[in-house]
Amino acid sequence: MAADDSPTPFRDELVARGHLIPSGQPGVFGRGDEFERVCTGFDRLVDDAVAPDGAERLRFPPLVPKLSIERVGYLKSFPDLIGAVFGFRGDEAEAAEMAQTAWEHGDWSGHLRQMDVTLTPAGCYPCYPAVAARGRLAADGALLDLGPCSVFRNEPSDDPARLQAFRMREVVRIGTPEQVLEWRERWMRRAQDVFARVELDADVDVANDPFFGRGGRMLAKNQRALQLKFEVLAPIATNAPTAISSFNYHQDHFGHAFGIERHDGEVAHSACLGFGLERVAMALMRRHGTDVGSWPSDVMRELRLDGPRP
Amino acid sequence: MAADDSPTPFRDELVARGHLIPSGQPGVFGRGDEFERVCTGFDRLVDDAVAPDGAERLRFPPLVPKLSIERVGYLKSFPDLIGAVFGFRGDEAEAAEMAQTAWEHGDWSGHLRQMDVTLTPAGCYPCYPAVAARGRLAADGALLDLGPCSVFRNEPSDDPARLQAFRMREVVRIGTPEQVLEWRERWMRRAQDVFARVELDADVDVANDPFFGRGGRMLAKNQRALQLKFEVLAPIATNAPTAISSFNYHQDHFGHAFGIERHDGEVAHSACLGFGLERVAMALMRRHGTDVGSWPSDVMRELRLDGPRP
Repeated sequence: MAADDSPTPFRDELVARGHLIPSGQPGVFGRGDEFERVCTGFDRLVDDAVAPDGAERLRFPPLVPKLSIERVGYLKSFPDLIGAVFGFRGDEAEAAEMAQTAWEHGDWSGHLRQMDVTLTPAGCYPCYPAVAARGRLAADGALLDLGPCSVFRNEPSDDPARLQAFRMREVVRIGTPEQVLEWRERWMRRAQDVFARVELDADVDVANDPFFGRGGRMLAKNQRALQLKFEVLAPIATNAPTAISSFNYHQDHFGHAFGIERHDGEVAHSACLGFGLERVAMALMRRHGTDVGSWPSDVMRELRLDGPRP
Repeated sequence: MAADDSPTPFRDELVARGHLIPSGQPGVFGRGDEFERVCTGFDRLVDDAVAPDGAERLRFPPLVPKLSIERVGYLKSFPDLIGAVFGFRGDEAEAAEMAQTAWEHGDWSGHLRQMDVTLTPAGCYPCYPAVAARGRLAADGALLDLGPCSVFRNEPSDDPARLQAFRMREVVRIGTPEQVLEWRERWMRRAQDVFARVELDADVDVANDPFFGRGGRMLAKNQRALQLKFEVLAPIATNAPTAISSFNYHQDHFGHAFGIERHDGEVAHSACLGFGLERVAMALMRRHGTDVGSWPSDVMRELRLDGPRP
């Protein structure tokens, strides 16, 4: 990476403006009020775009059962990104020993063991078992608005666009391949309209997930060949385009893993879309400047930044 | 616990109504739209009560540096509640082995090691280092509105009021003991007004944290004797009163741990208040019924449940 393409000057500017608040750990930041209002304003633009379809609104916490992670084979694709939750189940003597070690900033990991939950790696994961538990889908499938989901990726980085904890605004479509692909196609156009309203040039391109290792290269190649993933890209901390939104066709992966049946008894297909709220806010700051008060008035109005706090 | 005082019938009713969506893990639930609108409506009532004080609004992700947990001595008090984050840093061969073990639902914990973050156990933790980093406080101290914070407690339970992941609406006051105690006193009255608006009988009582083990009994006794913690209590899943809000005076605990200095160079004191959003929603459903559409019209209006979605 060339010196002039380092992500740290933009990160430092976001910090200096009070948009991001360093925690001492890379990729873990608090957020200032103005930054948060940009995230919320954009989330509402997505609300407006979702509303006409009559999606069912569900919300999930940032934890997912370990069993779900195992069932979907997450560790085959992204072992490096998982965040497992460990806890303490020892007695008082061991607790005292662990506390003392921690107090001295020593290694207390040996006192912990794995619990039955992990951090949610993608906002849509918790919805599939919930849909499966309802029994067969209706003929028109299911459409779920999951709102802003807090997700975790174990990839500490100096790039402010690569956070360990961030929010994805997620919508999920489940049904036949035709239903799911038609929905994804429609949303790829709709997302460009949403980005146009905030004057963000948003190029859509075929993409692949960051599959792990050499074996992952084949998965990535396959994903591109089948056009399973598209991304909207925009520059954030550097000139390199970064994904701010993605549109993912899972085929019958989740339907099979969790046993989701279509009305005709076949395994359901699914697709999801996600807007990375922090990345969108940062892309807007890259485009219009980190001084939000000086943004074009049309953009301010679209994001409801021009009136009293809602 | 007597059979008629089991928390599971109320949990099952919340599930049957679609308010809670089971994940398969105790204390981990998705939330239906109506439940979520109750949480959001109550959060806005708190917004209205916070606004006149001009608090600074900051938001934090559900992760906190491991170092912060060590510095505040969290493991001395609550070792059983911690959620540590473990990740994978091995090579491709080991990743394949871990993925295969996970696929077979075996024990893959041995492939993981502790990362530098933990789940946030209390919404206010991340704000103290952020305040300390700014240098000395102004003469009137600091007042921070942290909004709804996602927190974790490792206590799987059949009681729907005892979640592993839940949201605390947090406000924090930092300054002199007098500033901090006056603020807490004022808010204990104010909180009762907020609860009165939604027709919830809310008794305030001195309380203690669930300190671990026999040693913890002394800490709890001391906390009560010094009146460091008050709670608002209401019945939720059983007739036993459950805390739905708390008002905590930390003395100079966080000021000392993170080096927060008052304008005069002394160590700052702090207090926080938290409303447990899911618990408040459930207490309202216990009080007014799980059929939200049949709630008193005044309560619906206060929670903005009577108009279009905001």
